[in-house]
Amino acid sequence: MIDDILEQVQKGSLTAAEAKKKLASYENLGFVKIDHHRKRRQGFPEIVFGEGKTAEQILTIVQSLRTRNDSVLVTRISRDKAVFVQKECSDFEYNEIARTLAWVREKPKSVDSYIAIVCAGTSDLSVAEEAAVTAETLGIPVRRIYDVGVAGLHRLLDNIDEIRGATVSVCVAGMEGALPSVLGGLVTNPIIAVPTSIGYGANFNGLSALLSMLNSCASGVSVVNIDNGFGAAYNAAIIYKLVHKGGQL
Amino acid sequence: MIDDILEQVQKGSLTAAEAKKKLASYENLGFVKIDHHRKRRQGFPEIVFGEGKTAEQILTIVQSLRTRNDSVLVTRISRDKAVFVQKECSDFEYNEIARTLAWVREKPKSVDSYIAIVCAGTSDLSVAEEAAVTAETLGIPVRRIYDVGVAGLHRLLDNIDEIRGATVSVCVAGMEGALPSVLGGLVTNPIIAVPTSIGYGANFNGLSALLSMLNSCASGVSVVNIDNGFGAAYNAAIIYKLVHKGGQL
Amino acid sequence: MIDDILEQVQKGSLTAAEAKKKLASYENLGFVKIDHHRKRRQGFPEIVFGEGKTAEQILTIVQSLRTRNDSVLVTRISRDKAVFVQKECSDFEYNEIARTLAWVREKPKSVDSYIAIVCAGTSDLSVAEEAAVTAETLGIPVRRIYDVGVAGLHRLLDNIDEIRGATVSVCVAGMEGALPSVLGGLVTNPIIAVPTSIGYGANFNGLSALLSMLNSCASGVSVVNIDNGFGAAYNAAIIYKLVHKGGQL
Amino acid sequence: MIDDILEQVQKGSLTAAEAKKKLASYENLGFVKIDHHRKRRQGFPEIVFGEGKTAEQILTIVQSLRTRNDSVLVTRISRDKAVFVQKECSDFEYNEIARTLAWVREKPKSVDSYIAIVCAGTSDLSVAEEAAVTAETLGIPVRRIYDVGVAGLHRLLDNIDEIRGATVSVCVAGMEGALPSVLGGLVTNPIIAVPTSIGYGANFNGLSALLSMLNSCASGVSVVNIDNGFGAAYNAAIIYKLVHKGGQL
Amino acid sequence: MIDDILEQVQKGSLTAAEAKKKLASYENLGFVKIDHHRKRRQGFPEIVFGEGKTAEQILTIVQSLRTRNDSVLVTRISRDKAVFVQKECSDFEYNEIARTLAWVREKPKSVDSYIAIVCAGTSDLSVAEEAAVTAETLGIPVRRIYDVGVAGLHRLLDNIDEIRGATVSVCVAGMEGALPSVLGGLVTNPIIAVPTSIGYGANFNGLSALLSMLNSCASGVSVVNIDNGFGAAYNAAIIYKLVHKGGQL
Amino acid sequence: MIDDILEQVQKGSLTAAEAKKKLASYENLGFVKIDHHRKRRQGFPEIVFGEGKTAEQILTIVQSLRTRNDSVLVTRISRDKAVFVQKECSDFEYNEIARTLAWVREKPKSVDSYIAIVCAGTSDLSVAEEAAVTAETLGIPVRRIYDVGVAGLHRLLDNIDEIRGATVSVCVAGMEGALPSVLGGLVTNPIIAVPTSIGYGANFNGLSALLSMLNSCASGVSVVNIDNGFGAAYNAAIIYKLVHKGGQL
Amino acid sequence: MIDDILEQVQKGSLTAAEAKKKLASYENLGFVKIDHHRKRRQGFPEIVFGEGKTAEQILTIVQSLRTRNDSVLVTRISRDKAVFVQKECSDFEYNEIARTLAWVREKPKSVDSYIAIVCAGTSDLSVAEEAAVTAETLGIPVRRIYDVGVAGLHRLLDNIDEIRGATVSVCVAGMEGALPSVLGGLVTNPIIAVPTSIGYGANFNGLSALLSMLNSCASGVSVVNIDNGFGAAYNAAIIYKLVHKGGQL
Amino acid sequence: MIDDILEQVQKGSLTAAEAKKKLASYENLGFVKIDHHRKRRQGFPEIVFGEGKTAEQILTIVQSLRTRNDSVLVTRISRDKAVFVQKECSDFEYNEIARTLAWVREKPKSVDSYIAIVCAGTSDLSVAEEAAVTAETLGIPVRRIYDVGVAGLHRLLDNIDEIRGATVSVCVAGMEGALPSVLGGLVTNPIIAVPTSIGYGANFNGLSALLSMLNSCASGVSVVNIDNGFGAAYNAAIIYKLVHKGGQL
Repeated sequence: MIDDILEQVQKGSLTAAEAKKKLASYENLGFVKIDHHRKRRQGFPEIVFGEGKTAEQILTIVQSLRTRNDSVLVTRISRDKAVFVQKECSDFEYNEIARTLAWVREKPKSVDSYIAIVCAGTSDLSVAEEAAVTAETLGIPVRRIYDVGVAGLHRLLDNIDEIRGATVSVCVAGMEGALPSVLGGLVTNPIIAVPTSIGYGANFNGLSALLSMLNSCASGVSVVNIDNGFGAAYNAAIIYKLVHKGGQL
Repeated sequence: MIDDILEQVQKGSLTAAEAKKKLASYENLGFVKIDHHRKRRQGFPEIVFGEGKTAEQILTIVQSLRTRNDSVLVTRISRDKAVFVQKECSDFEYNEIARTLAWVREKPKSVDSYIAIVCAGTSDLSVAEEAAVTAETLGIPVRRIYDVGVAGLHRLLDNIDEIRGATVSVCVAGMEGALPSVLGGLVTNPIIAVPTSIGYGANFNGLSALLSMLNSCASGVSVVNIDNGFGAAYNAAIIYKLVHKGGQL
Repeated sequence: MIDDILEQVQKGSLTAAEAKKKLASYENLGFVKIDHHRKRRQGFPEIVFGEGKTAEQILTIVQSLRTRNDSVLVTRISRDKAVFVQKECSDFEYNEIARTLAWVREKPKSVDSYIAIVCAGTSDLSVAEEAAVTAETLGIPVRRIYDVGVAGLHRLLDNIDEIRGATVSVCVAGMEGALPSVLGGLVTNPIIAVPTSIGYGANFNGLSALLSMLNSCASGVSVVNIDNGFGAAYNAAIIYKLVHKGGQL
Repeated sequence: MIDDILEQVQKGSLTAAEAKKKLASYENLGFVKIDHHRKRRQGFPEIVFGEGKTAEQILTIVQSLRTRNDSVLVTRISRDKAVFVQKECSDFEYNEIARTLAWVREKPKSVDSYIAIVCAGTSDLSVAEEAAVTAETLGIPVRRIYDVGVAGLHRLLDNIDEIRGATVSVCVAGMEGALPSVLGGLVTNPIIAVPTSIGYGANFNGLSALLSMLNSCASGVSVVNIDNGFGAAYNAAIIYKLVHKGGQL
Repeated sequence: MIDDILEQVQKGSLTAAEAKKKLASYENLGFVKIDHHRKRRQGFPEIVFGEGKTAEQILTIVQSLRTRNDSVLVTRISRDKAVFVQKECSDFEYNEIARTLAWVREKPKSVDSYIAIVCAGTSDLSVAEEAAVTAETLGIPVRRIYDVGVAGLHRLLDNIDEIRGATVSVCVAGMEGALPSVLGGLVTNPIIAVPTSIGYGANFNGLSALLSMLNSCASGVSVVNIDNGFGAAYNAAIIYKLVHKGGQL
Repeated sequence: MIDDILEQVQKGSLTAAEAKKKLASYENLGFVKIDHHRKRRQGFPEIVFGEGKTAEQILTIVQSLRTRNDSVLVTRISRDKAVFVQKECSDFEYNEIARTLAWVREKPKSVDSYIAIVCAGTSDLSVAEEAAVTAETLGIPVRRIYDVGVAGLHRLLDNIDEIRGATVSVCVAGMEGALPSVLGGLVTNPIIAVPTSIGYGANFNGLSALLSMLNSCASGVSVVNIDNGFGAAYNAAIIYKLVHKGGQL
Repeated sequence: MIDDILEQVQKGSLTAAEAKKKLASYENLGFVKIDHHRKRRQGFPEIVFGEGKTAEQILTIVQSLRTRNDSVLVTRISRDKAVFVQKECSDFEYNEIARTLAWVREKPKSVDSYIAIVCAGTSDLSVAEEAAVTAETLGIPVRRIYDVGVAGLHRLLDNIDEIRGATVSVCVAGMEGALPSVLGGLVTNPIIAVPTSIGYGANFNGLSALLSMLNSCASGVSVVNIDNGFGAAYNAAIIYKLVHKGGQL
Repeated sequence: MIDDILEQVQKGSLTAAEAKKKLASYENLGFVKIDHHRKRRQGFPEIVFGEGKTAEQILTIVQSLRTRNDSVLVTRISRDKAVFVQKECSDFEYNEIARTLAWVREKPKSVDSYIAIVCAGTSDLSVAEEAAVTAETLGIPVRRIYDVGVAGLHRLLDNIDEIRGATVSVCVAGMEGALPSVLGGLVTNPIIAVPTSIGYGANFNGLSALLSMLNSCASGVSVVNIDNGFGAAYNAAIIYKLVHKGGQL
């Protein structure tokens, strides 16, 4: 982008002042600089991290984003704040388990390819749902394969074909976080592993699952932050788009 | 696979005994079970982790693998052991910096698409080279963009077009591990981040870079284990193959 | 100071008893010993750490300090306690975001030189504001450059001239804490880095940002405690005063 | 035992002085107090931890133990020290991989029941062999099921019947330490899990495998210290003896 | 089990479709897959982990389980949720200290053999009771030996005969977690050690007791997760059943 | 004590049954075994740790203890529970800052020797007061020297004579915990250092002060657990009694 | 700088191609990109981190740097490598304790102002000397005040005037790292604290000193990485230059 | 001491210049400032920490110390360096296990009171001997009670009378570090606990024993740094001297 600007400036099609403004491609709301070029630069619109923002701030950002994008997503948002936003934005949908507030201009048409969201236990549901909602809001079809932890291997094997059919899998697990290692040995496509903070004692808020996944003996597994369902889905969405567009994003 | 076997057994084209043997698709060398079906199952042949194996063991495994695959790769192998193996396998190439021993039946033809191997400093070279050799041995073209750490931002910006052109990037950094975050804001394609153990003091053997990368505020970044150049390249290779085959591996 | 006292005692201008009293240059309020010589010794008056003190205790200390100083600052004070103090001290100003209660006898005249308070994201605002209020209460002009994290590099580059113009910068960042490293490569003046506890999962309450900053590959960066906006501003203020007085404080 | 002594003293069959001596049921060699009553009290003779002891000290202890026991075991002993001891004790056997030196008066007769020693990868062999030799020296039959890590699930499933047949299993794994969780879902008998320090980076010398095993979602898994093959085998041996004697040890 | 299915399919007594269904031996309630074959596979019915489940979910699971098992156990369940369940299931018993909700079709007949539940201090009671209730619900007789920590050794020695008489002991301790080491030197049967999170300061939520127990110099001690009274009792129950059935579970 | 019992049993002045009862020198209240011989064995009566006990339990224990001792102390007890106990035990005194409930039959007579309770800042008061109340309840005179942290060295030097006059000092400090090191260079008598959890950020709940004190370059400093004012005072009291009795406790 | 380039390009005094080259202001030696514009951008020339580079690489870099700078500094370089470099660069000076290799075109003239390098113990000498050599090579006068740790306060007080006279102090300490806190209460100018890895046991390779310094109760203290004498001196040098130039670097 | 100087200066018996010199009561050998007033100030002469000092440096210090003290002690000194010093100081004694070099002008006369040095296992011998030699060099009689770890309780009980007879005990233990807790319940006099780094795996270089001892449920236990036999003995020696002198040191 810097190169483009340099070139345009040299050609005379852009003044230096205009060039500077171009770099400042965000809307400055005082407490935040909303990035409206993000979709062009990154392939997806900016997602709003709800934690630590007031309901009023979220509403302001959300209203600004919806005017220029086809979808808006707020993660880590409490029911109370969501209700506040929904008063103004009644077509936004709140997902209680995922703690997300989402709006999509147009539902994606059903296609054969999809991202698999796999999770080990019922207590990992919240993170798995955050991943699922994120992918769907980004326009990617998902299939949910839940409660297939390694201690009951038959449940996993029973669903393995569906996971193998996915372009890429998001694999969510807490406690010992062994699911990505086992899955990694059974499927060939990429796996984005998400450790969760579920557990107690020597779990140390997700450290055990995080270390497990980083040390996975299976190849094809990469890891995101503890409880970061959003990040995993975002990674998976990038890969999905790359594959099904057949090249560069 | 289990499904296939069930079906064949039912059709009578496979006895139960044969079914069992099929599952045991590895060669049992006593100290190790070599997995000869891995390529079919996983898309790539088994890679040999050299650390903790004797030169004799490595030679045995390597000779078994080369008869059934188009490439063989040993990682984390010392010069001494490599020399021992090369006596029997003179067409194997040792990379001093990467500490890899590799053999490919046929060099991959040059193509336009590639994986970018990006590293922050000269002390991250060893891990970056392990990644580069791994990808090349798996048949994927790579481009190396080295010594472009964030403290000298102009060096990174000067090379940003080449990185943007990659299908997927492997991004290697030690110390504060900030490179993937900065890169994540500049490119749209996936980034596999590799923290290195380079540094001293509060680096704690790579912990600082690892935590940085896991907490990256940039989307599109996933992480592998500290110093795991091999793992990052393997992940990148899977994605590359998915994209340039246009679907399922 | 001990030397001065020794000399005065020898000259006879001070008795040993008086000398002892001089060393005890604090007001003993029972639960606390207020240090009234601090400004003479340290260049700045004592600042009150509000956490763990009752509203009554804070009021007592604050009333004692204002009689002998030109400014008073309480950090980490809740709205409730602030309101209690303001009943008696109506000219004290409460900053909701920074959680500070401050009073200055006379606003500093505007000058060309300043401290830059730079922060990475909106969730770092609280710490950044604590730094800004601290500097201002100490009589130092500040400029705020907020929400310029490294994942949107253009926002930082767009404001770089203002940061370069500062005598010294306070740089606040949570999550991967990469901002000081990037900034350190772009400016020549000193940077005081403040890791924040913002984030989740492998952030470990600010550990990731702290380690990043300590391992910064950029020179000219020193670090204070997690969330310690006050301490960073105090350090910056000392340097500012040294520079613009042209020598010893 | 204290009760017995009290009773004998009261009956007059033991004087207080004799009672005291009885409590001191060890041989005092100066640098160590050898416990000759251990077998009677604990069911198994004392095992010698070789690390940190000189070859001379080990020889002294070993010669004292063999006169009163049916087997002697030294763990964590280097080849050099073993050779030194073997000069005097030529019927002692050194196991290079396990780093054990062992002597048994009489080989145990072959029986149907056994302990399974299961390990995930070739780099866990050393710990697995320490466990195997320990159990054998204690007179318990073992079967070795090696290199069956979770990333190649078919290798594990192929050997599952033999593991299910064991009275108790010792399960050795490094890296992400997922094997006991998977095994725990497939077998009903007790599993003693041993994390190994095998791995690199975020393995942190076995911490990742240790935490995994402690957080195992499978029931029936208990854990011993990192690399403690001896301890796991000892635990398994106690359980084996309990079961096949049908009651109290 | 997989073998059985293969064999039956080959014999024609099972179709491939039926074989698949057999592997799916769980009831899919949407949010959870209840495992009804667990008792046959594992020897004990599935236990419900109450934390993070709603009262409604627990009720649904519990009602499903009681129809096919002789006992039902919910652990980590609050009084409120328990009361909700008890409205429908009035014969379920809530244990306030253990925070368990349990139902047994028929009380086990009194027998001579038992598991000893030993705990160090009054603050470990909650974990010890969870262990005791678990064992009793699994049909195993227990004896409670509480408040016998090592700082008052005479209390332990006074109860040592009862502990020696147990087939296996569960040993619960917080703080320095020394009790299993002392006990390990006094009894011959297996000890399952449970560190508790009781304590403060350098206790670090049970880390001190956990590390102590893992490093126990006494043999015959294996360890479960911090505060995992349930897991310890489950392990002990498996061993108890093995011993008193005289062979394989 | 075991020796005494052995001897008496042999002499016939004690039966074996009586001997056993002697060892059981505690009152068994079900949920707790109160140790009434402790004062004879340990020099001080048992102290009650209030945390995790109900008000009812504390009352029961306290009533049992006061009948056989000259003083009773409950630590870590909330105001609510204290008020409950005071209804029955109106002569018990509650210390709000120390969170202790104490009763002494007779106030100790004033003597010249004393324990110094030294603390660094106002936020360490709670721990310092717990130490002071503990010592006083054990009958030892104390002097309080508060708010003398190392950043205002003159406050410490001004009070150094009083600290030097103490038989032994308890030194309480949070944050960087430097006070014991400085004090250790200025006084010759023993110092019991207590790290407090006061601070934020990289304080990690007292870890920084704990490590500082353990690594103190000053000799004569030993350390107790974080926030353990009680333990420090108890240690100091033992030393005080030894010194002023001139020999064995 | 980017602004300058934009402006020049617009004015026509620079082509886009030239603009690009300008950004690439480093010499590409293959394994490293030497930054020759650093001095202009940063105020000081690039310093070479010797660890992990071969003697040949260091020589190449050093020869390139000396042609365009007035001083060259290599840190963390072993005697062997230094001797190798000195063969070609005989006017380079090796400092055994600091492990630095330095060359200055012209010795700085003596001036009244200086940086104080203060260290706590003899074992911190290596880090202190690295700081001293760094500052001197950057052209800043230093004074060394060594072995003045807090356990012998009189040694510190005896040298306090010299430290107070410094524009800025570098304060090096291992073990409990208390020196900066004490010093921070005695001087008004800035203190850059360097924790060292000196110590054993609970020192954890400098963690104790690092945490102490980050938690310092004294204001005016900022911190660099463990053992980072170079970084501390570089920070101090920036401040020194700012002060004695009276404004912007 | 500062008071004395003030007073003398006022009386005119001391000039300010002399007063300053008095404060500088150390010999400045360049690399170290030897503290010759320490014995007067602290009760014991300075002890030399041998690690990180050259043989020549140690010799210089040792020769300076012996001229003004009745004993000299060097800790953590290798055999090689000791032999070098002994060439000049042939009456210095080297203790191989303790790694100490010591000289005493006159052996202490035998007395009835003593310090007990208690250790858990043979691998703790080195630390225990460092403690024993330290105490003896400081003129305090010691008794050694070694290899009495808690897993063989009878060995401890058999020696308990001798430990009870000690004025104060140093208690050395590695692994789970349970010995001080058990001992603390059996003796009334103070216990200085020393964790050792002996062990492997989850021992984490002494962390497990350190945490155990800090969390000891027994009162009367204080702790020093890991492996700090010297520090423990020094603490014990101070207490011993206080007790047997009947008051202030």
